[in-house]
Amino acid sequence: MVPRSNRLAVLALLFAVPVSASPAGERIRGFTKEGSETERAAEESYRGVPRPESASRHLRRLTEDLHLAGTPGSHDTARYVHERFLEYGLESEMVSYDVLLSYPDSVKFELKVPEAFSGPTPEAGIPWDKDSFSPDAVAPFLAYSASGDVTAEVVYANYGLPEDFDELERQGVPLSGKIAIVRFGRCYRGVKVRVAESRGCAGVIIYSDPADDGYVRGDVYPKGPWRPETAVQRGSIQYVFLCPGDPLTPGWPSIPGERRIDAAESLVLPKIPAIAISYGDARRILQNIEGQNVPRAWQGGLPFAYHCGPGPALVRLDVKMKLEVRKIWNVIGTLPGSSPEEKDQIVLMGNHRDAWCYGAVDPSSGTAVLLEVARGLGALRKEGRGPRRTLKLCSWDAEEYGLVGSVEWAEHHAKDLSENAVAYVNCDAAVSGPNVGFSASPSLGDLAGEIAAHVTDPRSGKTIEELARERGGPAASPVSVGTLGSGSDFTAFLDHLGIACFDLSSVGPYGVYHSIYDSYAWMSRFGDPTFEYHCVVAKLAGTLLLRLGNADVLPFDLGDDGAKIVEHAAAVEKLREGTTLEDLKRQATTLEVEGRALAEAVEAALEAGTLGPEAARKVSRVLAAAERGFIDERGLVGRPWYRHLVVAPGVNAGYAAESLPGLRDAVSSGDAAAIAREKARLLEAIGRVIASVREARKLVAGGELKGEAR
Amino acid sequence: MVPRSNRLAVLALLFAVPVSASPAGERIRGFTKEGSETERAAEESYRGVPRPESASRHLRRLTEDLHLAGTPGSHDTARYVHERFLEYGLESEMVSYDVLLSYPDSVKFELKVPEAFSGPTPEAGIPWDKDSFSPDAVAPFLAYSASGDVTAEVVYANYGLPEDFDELERQGVPLSGKIAIVRFGRCYRGVKVRVAESRGCAGVIIYSDPADDGYVRGDVYPKGPWRPETAVQRGSIQYVFLCPGDPLTPGWPSIPGERRIDAAESLVLPKIPAIAISYGDARRILQNIEGQNVPRAWQGGLPFAYHCGPGPALVRLDVKMKLEVRKIWNVIGTLPGSSPEEKDQIVLMGNHRDAWCYGAVDPSSGTAVLLEVARGLGALRKEGRGPRRTLKLCSWDAEEYGLVGSVEWAEHHAKDLSENAVAYVNCDAAVSGPNVGFSASPSLGDLAGEIAAHVTDPRSGKTIEELARERGGPAASPVSVGTLGSGSDFTAFLDHLGIACFDLSSVGPYGVYHSIYDSYAWMSRFGDPTFEYHCVVAKLAGTLLLRLGNADVLPFDLGDDGAKIVEHAAAVEKLREGTTLEDLKRQATTLEVEGRALAEAVEAALEAGTLGPEAARKVSRVLAAAERGFIDERGLVGRPWYRHLVVAPGVNAGYAAESLPGLRDAVSSGDAAAIAREKARLLEAIGRVIASVREARKLVAGGELKGEAR
Repeated sequence: MVPRSNRLAVLALLFAVPVSASPAGERIRGFTKEGSETERAAEESYRGVPRPESASRHLRRLTEDLHLAGTPGSHDTARYVHERFLEYGLESEMVSYDVLLSYPDSVKFELKVPEAFSGPTPEAGIPWDKDSFSPDAVAPFLAYSASGDVTAEVVYANYGLPEDFDELERQGVPLSGKIAIVRFGRCYRGVKVRVAESRGCAGVIIYSDPADDGYVRGDVYPKGPWRPETAVQRGSIQYVFLCPGDPLTPGWPSIPGERRIDAAESLVLPKIPAIAISYGDARRILQNIEGQNVPRAWQGGLPFAYHCGPGPALVRLDVKMKLEVRKIWNVIGTLPGSSPEEKDQIVLMGNHRDAWCYGAVDPSSGTAVLLEVARGLGALRKEGRGPRRTLKLCSWDAEEYGLVGSVEWAEHHAKDLSENAVAYVNCDAAVSGPNVGFSASPSLGDLAGEIAAHVTDPRSGKTIEELARERGGPAASPVSVGTLGSGSDFTAFLDHLGIACFDLSSVGPYGVYHSIYDSYAWMSRFGDPTFEYHCVVAKLAGTLLLRLGNADVLPFDLGDDGAKIVEHAAAVEKLREGTTLEDLKRQATTLEVEGRALAEAVEAALEAGTLGPEAARKVSRVLAAAERGFIDERGLVGRPWYRHLVVAPGVNAGYAAESLPGLRDAVSSGDAAAIAREKARLLEAIGRVIASVREARKLVAGGELKGEAR
Repeated sequence: MVPRSNRLAVLALLFAVPVSASPAGERIRGFTKEGSETERAAEESYRGVPRPESASRHLRRLTEDLHLAGTPGSHDTARYVHERFLEYGLESEMVSYDVLLSYPDSVKFELKVPEAFSGPTPEAGIPWDKDSFSPDAVAPFLAYSASGDVTAEVVYANYGLPEDFDELERQGVPLSGKIAIVRFGRCYRGVKVRVAESRGCAGVIIYSDPADDGYVRGDVYPKGPWRPETAVQRGSIQYVFLCPGDPLTPGWPSIPGERRIDAAESLVLPKIPAIAISYGDARRILQNIEGQNVPRAWQGGLPFAYHCGPGPALVRLDVKMKLEVRKIWNVIGTLPGSSPEEKDQIVLMGNHRDAWCYGAVDPSSGTAVLLEVARGLGALRKEGRGPRRTLKLCSWDAEEYGLVGSVEWAEHHAKDLSENAVAYVNCDAAVSGPNVGFSASPSLGDLAGEIAAHVTDPRSGKTIEELARERGGPAASPVSVGTLGSGSDFTAFLDHLGIACFDLSSVGPYGVYHSIYDSYAWMSRFGDPTFEYHCVVAKLAGTLLLRLGNADVLPFDLGDDGAKIVEHAAAVEKLREGTTLEDLKRQATTLEVEGRALAEAVEAALEAGTLGPEAARKVSRVLAAAERGFIDERGLVGRPWYRHLVVAPGVNAGYAAESLPGLRDAVSSGDAAAIAREKARLLEAIGRVIASVREARKLVAGGELKGEAR
């Protein structure tokens, strides 16, 4: 669901992580000396398993047919994943939910003035690429669009951000009753529709500008990896930044016996019709918009000067949608923990499986990776070397519609997860090129450099960690780790339940996102022709799962959470002159200092061999649960489903992370009472995490005092 | 000759100037109290003269026919200017030189592979614009191109800068024997050809990319002011950055009896054929270039992904040029000084008159301004209020070919000018929109804000100075003044003779530069429909001339030269680690401090009325000559015609100023002996200017001591 460009952008956010490879003989962070030996051997065995030919076979099978959520294709891929899990030695179940999905009956537009043109133009077939022909592919549409038949003059509103509409209003361009044409990019597409709706627009057309992912970026498919003239970005416009998941069960699982609201009551369904079109079609409309010239940054890559409108282009949008409750299937593979004392503790990995069409990159490359991870971990289990904690590998359905499969499952298992989840590792659109990137909750950030030191980049022969260090320049820290926003299945785990998350992928030039051209043919020509980067991601993910599954003490550094909050607070201070958040920064600094001291104490004890296993387990439980301290049951103002006080998706960004969201809004509004309230909530939340740190510290000291033997 | 975009860019360089308007009763800087009253009255009278209808009439007449240098059209406009000068009460003479010019016999290109296309496509006629049709307009060509008939594969080299060709070499793209296609912009077009020639290219095609001055910037002519599909930027590719003027008389005037070198000996004539084409034609070639994708910044505005090549596009360039010695005409209007003691002192204003086609903006708007200035100053002279020093208004010919008219005249009158010139005020392409901008030698910079305070912006009703202050933001100083580079007729005066210069213009969106569409129709639709900005520039220029012509003590601040050199030296230090230029900065700081003290002493004496007229005249002479101190007779290494040690056009930029050029090159090369030599030259030059400052300071003190009465 996340467009790749956003992920690449995330690499620029870079926060620093010290490197720590673990050559033979050295202790691995979070492990005793003996534990390190066992772990190293297990990881090395594991990393011998993923194979390009196997990943390629999975991808070919997964992309053989269309597999849109709520259709037989999706059920078919669910069965394939389920059967592989069983074959590889995992326990597996297919878990279904009945959820509200959206399909097009008929989506058309018609340019009526000043010339006649009817669209959409179908995505063009490519002779040697059978997947570009399917008559069964879902016509381009925006899921959860309202139905409607509106005819109006068109205005061009750049990316459809609030500031873009502000600019039109400043220019005196009327918006009420007009159709806004906006380009994809910069924010989640649902944001564009909600903003247009709030400004009184009658409808929205979203198109892919060639400046953003077409010929301005490079050669277009099939010559290159970028978006060709007829390719359309399908996608959901559910207001997931308010609440994701099944629109009829906001905040609770879609299981028998639970209440369902009426669709009309939902706050996450757009009220106006919206369509997605290609730049070939958009050109017909845009070149017929007059009025004032656009601000310089609004000019896109089509070969004429853009104007704001309104009109003379007069367009009819004729959108007939159907909302249907259909069955979706998650597949949950389980490797039960081998340690009786720790098997209740759950480490999760997930990736969605549903695609708008064939979805080779998004998401099938992630599914192929998940299956290679399953194969590798299953092999270890068969040898009796399965991890101590329980691992769950999750293949989610209906992510594209609004993270539906993962949200319903997380809501369904909220109690168990809140008590026992250790961390959630996410893949989505796992492979589109050779540039490996990480995002993570701060406490998990150090793990990126540690796992990257064990996996070799196939092109350069260097480790991923060395490459990252080179990319960062001599002065940079080795591996940069982005901040998690939203737009993929970690959302329920991080933002709703407060489980530390980690996301990884290997990306490159990718312009066929959510079009029929995101196919096996594209992948084998551009994304990962040798399928070696599928193996890179599988090796990284599996290594990470093994560390989290086997660590004597979970290698979480809560000090990094504190440091990050200090940064966030400084950024929020800049939003309004005179804002000072000294108390917040002081509290966060306490977390930073005490968190780091705890991490050091743990490592010293592990090094000295003075921490007994019972104490280590207790410390791990405290660390695993610590992130929950950031959860406030009341949720954020106006969107109670989002309960993490430190990160949330931006209401006007959708994908990108918004830090300290409640406080940020309060400071922006200047409401002193709200600022005080939000600050108090944050101080309490950070206080809860500090309490966890102190509890863990005591346990470490106690464990050492007791000199408990392993 | 200067493209407008470069002038706009100059606004970003901004150096600060304190404001000093002069309301009635207040003393004007450089004037005694009584002198201020007389001056204020004269200026106000003057500013009452320029009229939009008069400027419009001049422009209509000047652009009625084509007036390329060396053709009857140019002689005709010379006569028009000469007759107006006489009519307005100036003395006037038409001064001719026989110089080497370049004309196209036949300029063609042919795309042979992978498809056939022959060009150039003629510039398209526009039904209601008679000037877009002329069969007599010179076909697009690049003056002084070599003749040649070459057929070769094409490589795309972005702007044709040295770093662009370096990038191609890094990528392994062969250059030897290839034809380079490069886009206009970022540097003088002659630089592109010289760089391509130095890399072994067989020919060069320069085209106007729509990203730079076409539809990406806004609507194209006739709908908007930007470059349409068939418009071609003509221009000279003489290597003026080595030496401008008549290529046959480098450094001396083209007058009877003087030696002429053989064209084959010239160092400023390209050796390979080069043509200029439109983006309509360039598209045919560029879309047939394959090979590696271009770096992201190289992508232009045509609707496909650009590639580096070479080929498969195979192009034949068939260029037949003729070099001919033809007659050009400068028109020199003179207002002899009214003061017997000061009439040998000369204040100059100049603007060229020759155009590639109709040249409404470039240069006829400047000629219209010059004529309005002449009308206003002539009116004062008729009333016996002519300025004390001699003013010369110069209409140059053959500027487009390489500043030929002004260079030959300046070389011809070098002795007189070196002894007696006070300053040179330049206009070129004076009006293309409503944004007034200034560039100046540092010592003249303060005048910008002072004259701007007296002229009202017609749209806003505010003064130009108030507008500039608003544009700069609350913290900025009122009027920003750019650094003079090259590309117009001030070059001979500043860089060769060491005369302080000032340049002004009023600019806006302007994409028809050097095409047939730079016409009266364009100007009356986009550039200055009411012709009020022609009057703005005329009022500013005339006010400036009156100040320079009448000042009791010339209002030059040599301290600003010192301050600027300190900045330049700091920039040069950054070119190579370990470079320190402390002695140079110290010397420049001395100039800054003593120059400012002098300026203050002068003002204090004028305010107190203690400076007698003889001392004031002597001080003025010293100040007028001070800039000559920066001249080193030996010239710059490799280009002895350029003799100013502080500023020169960049060899790899052509238009933009390069500060401390000799020292900069030496530091870049790392040659310790060269650095020492260049530093010594600069120390001596600054020392000469400091000596002028001290001489003037003594004269001020002496004049005060003598208590000499006015």
